[in-house]
Amino acid sequence: MLDKKYLSLDKAYRILLDSIKFRSLSFEMVPLEEAYGRITYEDIYASENLPGFKRSTVDGFAVRSQDTFGAKETMPVYLTVKGEILMGEAPSFYLNPGEAAGIGTGGMLPEGADAVVMVEHVNIVSQNLIEVLKPVAPGENVILEDEDIKKDELIIPAGKRLKPQDIGGLAGLGFTEVKVTKKPIVAIILTGDEIIPHNEKATPGKVRDINSFTLAGLIQNTGGISVKMGIVKDKYEDIKDLVNKAYQIADIILITGGTSAGIKDMTAQIINELGTPGIIFHGVLIKPGKPVIAGICNGKPVFGLPGHPVAVYICFELFIKPVMEKMLGVNEKKFKNIVKAKLAKSIYSQAGRTDFVRIQLKEENGELWAYPLLTKSGLITTLIKANGILCIPEELLGYEKEEIVEVELL
Amino acid sequence: MLDKKYLSLDKAYRILLDSIKFRSLSFEMVPLEEAYGRITYEDIYASENLPGFKRSTVDGFAVRSQDTFGAKETMPVYLTVKGEILMGEAPSFYLNPGEAAGIGTGGMLPEGADAVVMVEHVNIVSQNLIEVLKPVAPGENVILEDEDIKKDELIIPAGKRLKPQDIGGLAGLGFTEVKVTKKPIVAIILTGDEIIPHNEKATPGKVRDINSFTLAGLIQNTGGISVKMGIVKDKYEDIKDLVNKAYQIADIILITGGTSAGIKDMTAQIINELGTPGIIFHGVLIKPGKPVIAGICNGKPVFGLPGHPVAVYICFELFIKPVMEKMLGVNEKKFKNIVKAKLAKSIYSQAGRTDFVRIQLKEENGELWAYPLLTKSGLITTLIKANGILCIPEELLGYEKEEIVEVELL
Repeated sequence: MLDKKYLSLDKAYRILLDSIKFRSLSFEMVPLEEAYGRITYEDIYASENLPGFKRSTVDGFAVRSQDTFGAKETMPVYLTVKGEILMGEAPSFYLNPGEAAGIGTGGMLPEGADAVVMVEHVNIVSQNLIEVLKPVAPGENVILEDEDIKKDELIIPAGKRLKPQDIGGLAGLGFTEVKVTKKPIVAIILTGDEIIPHNEKATPGKVRDINSFTLAGLIQNTGGISVKMGIVKDKYEDIKDLVNKAYQIADIILITGGTSAGIKDMTAQIINELGTPGIIFHGVLIKPGKPVIAGICNGKPVFGLPGHPVAVYICFELFIKPVMEKMLGVNEKKFKNIVKAKLAKSIYSQAGRTDFVRIQLKEENGELWAYPLLTKSGLITTLIKANGILCIPEELLGYEKEEIVEVELL
Repeated sequence: MLDKKYLSLDKAYRILLDSIKFRSLSFEMVPLEEAYGRITYEDIYASENLPGFKRSTVDGFAVRSQDTFGAKETMPVYLTVKGEILMGEAPSFYLNPGEAAGIGTGGMLPEGADAVVMVEHVNIVSQNLIEVLKPVAPGENVILEDEDIKKDELIIPAGKRLKPQDIGGLAGLGFTEVKVTKKPIVAIILTGDEIIPHNEKATPGKVRDINSFTLAGLIQNTGGISVKMGIVKDKYEDIKDLVNKAYQIADIILITGGTSAGIKDMTAQIINELGTPGIIFHGVLIKPGKPVIAGICNGKPVFGLPGHPVAVYICFELFIKPVMEKMLGVNEKKFKNIVKAKLAKSIYSQAGRTDFVRIQLKEENGELWAYPLLTKSGLITTLIKANGILCIPEELLGYEKEEIVEVELL
């Protein structure tokens, strides 16, 4: 079902994402220490109340609040100090009317007490006697036993990428491990008679592998495991063999190079032969990245990416990252990291095509300027020098110099 | 030199950063595969021209451009096809006037050729003869040997955090390793009689360790190595012993808990005894995080952080992260990740104090709303539920309901 008609970006995106099953990957239990950045597989509920006991939020004296009613500087209330509550200890005594007990921030209130007077609002008369200068309401300066978290409360929903503070919270609740979605294994196959490994000397006609290094980092940042399958010549049988090998071990297969004209339809043919339904689109109205191929082979996404390093980057962001996130079950509101800048130079696009222009952001005289990096070559230069991407949507023909544009940070 | 006067945030920040030496950490060589996210220690220059040979940017025919001048659909120029250039091979022939050679995208131009006619602008008459329908200018559809990168050109400056595409670029240039700043080792000491490890059962009065897990993730994300020194009771000698141990192995020491009143001045005393100049500030006009202590002990930054998990998070972002980045030699323009949202509820602050309010961002009817998470407890709840932070600067008394505010994404 090879269809070479170019699709709009929006349509290609929808066709692709609609053919991916949400959270199609399995799960695993990982210790908290290894859960940073992982995606929760299911909702996580609290197994207990937190803090679990009545806790002071200030340094001061635990009291029965009604004892303090009417207290003021000119007419303090006198309370007997029954003792000092040690941090980390449950108090051994009961607080009777007219009594108070020294308590630190985080200390546990004794039974009978329902509030804490801050040390600033107390005159310490002697070891056993204080003057309270200000009344406290019931519950004042106190956290109730279930006020932070109630047992069985949802604390982290499924599909969240765990941040350091989430892991902190789980530790506080006594979790030692978390159920997370397994990392997708993403195989990278490089095709092209001209490609050599990065550690080989480049001779005329040859270029070194760039894409497997860019892709490996992007895959890792998105929460996957990259597997470099190696470099293969532009030969049908060789590519097919390596794709079959990748299919055995990977959840997603990326084939770079071999996606434009002529003999390069091999990639498309191999994807179609790998499984059903095969290719779901071949060619999208974007620049760079137009010849991109996407296929689903027996449930596994397989991509044919152009060999151009910038196109590889763009195609990853547009197609592969959302696919990985859907397979991982990521389910949280995303905010794009965007800055507004003044365009330093007019740029033009074609109607119906979505362009992605590499941008170098520079601050000049307190203003942020967006310099388009428009070189015909730009293999490495624009990859490295850009710190932003400007999208020209399909309905626009470009942007004018000095127009304010929204640049997505890289 | 203990100074308990509270500083403004801005002043505290400047005093702290001014006492840190830029790129004080040493360097190491790491293989490309391990260099993702690392900070370059020195400027990186290209060791060769790239692509290193004249390369076609399209599929078509390599030609001598002057042969094509005047070509049009109605009056094509006829050229003899001398052969096909194989990808990855240096052509074995010279292109004479009147000759052309088939070439693919990325192929190497033969000597004599200076441009490529796109296949779309050619009629293939026979295996040996083509009609050129459109002229090409010298250099058209060609990348010169040093057009992407010139030998000895600066490609990546010192102090850059290496992105996937930077690593890709370095691979393309034949680098196999990079000189990066060593990761700072950050020791975490937890103090407090009430703190127990996360894998222990909480009994009344005790709370589990949250902070070492939050801090470890933040340290890792900033490019450091966290070392958990363990939990120590609020006892001067015990804390001092552990701080001394940390001082032997770490570049930065974090002590959580033990920074507010009374017996808790121990932390301050221990920092002052550890080395000179000792404490540089104790207390900053921020909420949360007011009792934060910063010291420099014989060149090593030592922090006393409040025990409250949200304060720990805020103090990390405000003080420890910038210190780590300065020690790492990070030297790139930073863009804060900010969204605008409508405030769901008025919030108030004190003049002269900088407040950091945890925010839950919610999209409702196409509008983004910022819900302040204002609970008196908020140990874990606000840590986990917040996806943004709103800063109320010291000169403001708060924000009104429905005001548009800038929320920094977490």
